[in-house]
Amino acid sequence: MAGMVHVYTGNGKGKTTSAIGLAVRAVGAGLNVFIGQFVKGMEYSELNSLADIEGITVEQYGQNYFIKGQPNKKDIESADYGLKKIKNILDSGKYDLVILDEANIATYYDLFKVDDLIDIIENRAKNVEVVITGRMANNKIIEYADLVTEMKEIKHYYQKGIIAREGIEK
Amino acid sequence: MAGMVHVYTGNGKGKTTSAIGLAVRAVGAGLNVFIGQFVKGMEYSELNSLADIEGITVEQYGQNYFIKGQPNKKDIESADYGLKKIKNILDSGKYDLVILDEANIATYYDLFKVDDLIDIIENRAKNVEVVITGRMANNKIIEYADLVTEMKEIKHYYQKGIIAREGIEK
Repeated sequence: MAGMVHVYTGNGKGKTTSAIGLAVRAVGAGLNVFIGQFVKGMEYSELNSLADIEGITVEQYGQNYFIKGQPNKKDIESADYGLKKIKNILDSGKYDLVILDEANIATYYDLFKVDDLIDIIENRAKNVEVVITGRMANNKIIEYADLVTEMKEIKHYYQKGIIAREGIEK
Repeated sequence: MAGMVHVYTGNGKGKTTSAIGLAVRAVGAGLNVFIGQFVKGMEYSELNSLADIEGITVEQYGQNYFIKGQPNKKDIESADYGLKKIKNILDSGKYDLVILDEANIATYYDLFKVDDLIDIIENRAKNVEVVITGRMANNKIIEYADLVTEMKEIKHYYQKGIIAREGIEK
């Protein structure tokens, strides 16, 4: 059966963690999972545990800081390198589930063109399920996807001044 | 620091998977995680992989079917048993992150009282982070929680007639 394209977007918590949960579910059913993280190059806690799970491969295509203001040349080069890697991964059909974490943010910052991303996904091996996460999903991605969930922030403790904690937010 | 209470609700995809992703992140930071699944007693694919991750314990307090219409005596007994177990887990402070998967549905079906659930959470060991998932979150839970995310369905392939697939939905 043809793989579907999921999008998890919105300003609420739970986009990347949903994708990780999907990865864990998929390997539990014997599927192979590839996670490419755009924009991010930080040491997230989940990377420690994901590395131990057979059937999940993780690569990062970002720096160890978040982009603020204008992206620099290195930000663009890393994302471009990542997109080329992802194209090969998607063409190969070797992975049943391919997660493009924060790819929405990459298109938001124009690190690569949304049309190029859609083109690569459209031409993938047909069995591959694709998950795209990140705020600010481009309308073209929302239109193209088979499933779109908006994570909507109703209430957040950041508003109470609680900062990101290891093991919970990072 | 005092643990927070998260709620993931709404009709969109990504509530349970977010909780699983949080569990994976937490163990990556060396935290201990307990997952109690209310209403569910089915063999989900994620249970295979979660069982392999050191630091995550999973228990189910449901039957191998979804409740339709009125819950029966067994549904209520299982949930009640689960709530007692969860009370001990929360009191002990032995687990840093405790996930009450589908607890919202349990209160929706009145398998136990929402006031009892809140009381148990309120009297937990103070370090414990609590995550509650499921559609139809009770307003009292939403008011009580520190963080609430609504997973909002924007588009779903179920509308195209695609049924739940092993490794992706179950």
